Amino acid sequence: MHIYIYSPSGAVRDKAALRRAVKHLGRLGHDVELDPDALSTKQRFAGDDQARVLSIARAAASGADIAMPTRGGYGITRLMKHLPYKAIASSIKQGMRWVGHSDFTALQMGVLAKTGVITWAGPHACADFGAQEVDEIMQDCFDDMAQGRGEGAGWRLPASDLAHLPKRTMLAEDAKLWGGNLSVLCSLIGTPFLPAVEKGVLFLEDVAEHPYRIERMLTQLLNTGVLAKQQAIVLGQFTDYKLTKHDQGYKLETVVSWLRDHVKVPVLTGLPFGHVPTKVCLPVGQVVNLLREDREAFLLWAHQAHD
Amino acid sequence: MHIYIYSPSGAVRDKAALRRAVKHLGRLGHDVELDPDALSTKQRFAGDDQARVLSIARAAASGADIAMPTRGGYGITRLMKHLPYKAIASSIKQGMRWVGHSDFTALQMGVLAKTGVITWAGPHACADFGAQEVDEIMQDCFDDMAQGRGEGAGWRLPASDLAHLPKRTMLAEDAKLWGGNLSVLCSLIGTPFLPAVEKGVLFLEDVAEHPYRIERMLTQLLNTGVLAKQQAIVLGQFTDYKLTKHDQGYKLETVVSWLRDHVKVPVLTGLPFGHVPTKVCLPVGQVVNLLREDREAFLLWAHQAHD
Repeated sequence: MHIYIYSPSGAVRDKAALRRAVKHLGRLGHDVELDPDALSTKQRFAGDDQARVLSIARAAASGADIAMPTRGGYGITRLMKHLPYKAIASSIKQGMRWVGHSDFTALQMGVLAKTGVITWAGPHACADFGAQEVDEIMQDCFDDMAQGRGEGAGWRLPASDLAHLPKRTMLAEDAKLWGGNLSVLCSLIGTPFLPAVEKGVLFLEDVAEHPYRIERMLTQLLNTGVLAKQQAIVLGQFTDYKLTKHDQGYKLETVVSWLRDHVKVPVLTGLPFGHVPTKVCLPVGQVVNLLREDREAFLLWAHQAHD
Repeated sequence: MHIYIYSPSGAVRDKAALRRAVKHLGRLGHDVELDPDALSTKQRFAGDDQARVLSIARAAASGADIAMPTRGGYGITRLMKHLPYKAIASSIKQGMRWVGHSDFTALQMGVLAKTGVITWAGPHACADFGAQEVDEIMQDCFDDMAQGRGEGAGWRLPASDLAHLPKRTMLAEDAKLWGGNLSVLCSLIGTPFLPAVEKGVLFLEDVAEHPYRIERMLTQLLNTGVLAKQQAIVLGQFTDYKLTKHDQGYKLETVVSWLRDHVKVPVLTGLPFGHVPTKVCLPVGQVVNLLREDREAFLLWAHQAHD
């Protein structure tokens, strides 16, 4: 596989991690191409806005099988009006898979809203393939995605989910899968860059956001009517926040419980996706089924995007 | 003046500050009434959702001249669908002034969107009147507001503003003044609780938000089209954030400069409003003029809300 690595968001500070990622992907037999601006910096960004738009355009024109960011951070929401949507969509129709998470959610939402084509929620170069120990499940899911073999993702539901889920096996049918980073997704509400998905499956994750902020964002999605329009909501990993003395028992589980009180659709948790080593690859914009059998949940996409 | 103090948001932890506020307001000759649930707690909140809605309803029914929260925090966005909008509007039409900031912005935006009546951006009991040293300017502005004497707010513009402002004196004319806390306001985008203000003056402040997050929120307002519709944007105080090594020169001024590159309307800074001791009182929903003479800016409302 020809993998094109580029920097659409924050500047790469951990160059050793990027070197490890390139080496690791090479050892797996991939042909890795680094964008000329992959290590560029402009303040906190990997280059100014124009440079980053151009790096995205080069990725689209690279003819690679996979386009993967070095890292997330912050920077894509500034580019929304200037992203090369047509070139990205065209590259995807020709078989390229765009993968990433976190800030990359903005590009994924914009591409879905503007063109309807499928991108992949999945790993980044530095944090995932540049880790001191590369997570095996992440790597297997990435391989499946890269080879076009993946047909779904499964995970074990927390016991606390079970009482709240409907008895039926099929929780969502022919549902468009969408979502990603909650903060980034919410920062697109009201703009032309958030897709209007109805009867979908919305998956969400976030990092370093206190549960009250997660709740405030979910409230926004609730009050815009987005949540009620979905067939199911799937929560991934919410990590790296700090509870305080002021919380007095208020915690992430309180927010999940509050969410369940405010929506009628099933809310599943525990999806292995987010700012964690073990992450699955998910086709954003793909039609999926969501099933539950006892403690196991499955997101299944019968056909690959490019079949 | 009869001042009704209630807790619509976070639980009061600093009871001494509330006691000081009540004493201080009493010494100023005010008749202070404390809502029975002012000190209630439920996890991080000042009581559960229903209790806080009821405390707001009691404030509306109190017949007081002024309704003022003990404090902000987080909690009102959860209540948006259940706020007693009609009772609040009715109390305001009978002469009550609702004042506050931070989380209170949510109530102000909802009231403006649903009823069009005027509320006041201004102090809270604990942080402002319960301070060890009560800020004199804040107190004077509050007095003016309370007595219906206030006709405007003026401040000295930072030198860095001057090159970017139009030469004319009148920067905005017959413009609806609106805004408040940027995070809270943005958390209402896409919901029925954000007023659709055109040709207004939008003022914004925030606390403990890194400049990149401020920029991401301003980008959202930009991409929704809200900013272009205003006559002017007035930035208050953005405080208590920490820059990091990763920022490499990126700072709040970078964001202001970026904003000026992306909107055609005047952007003023330095408004004495936010999470700072010195804060003016501003009539949210009132028609104002915005003037500039040399280094001085003035927000003028010719008539009081109730004249």
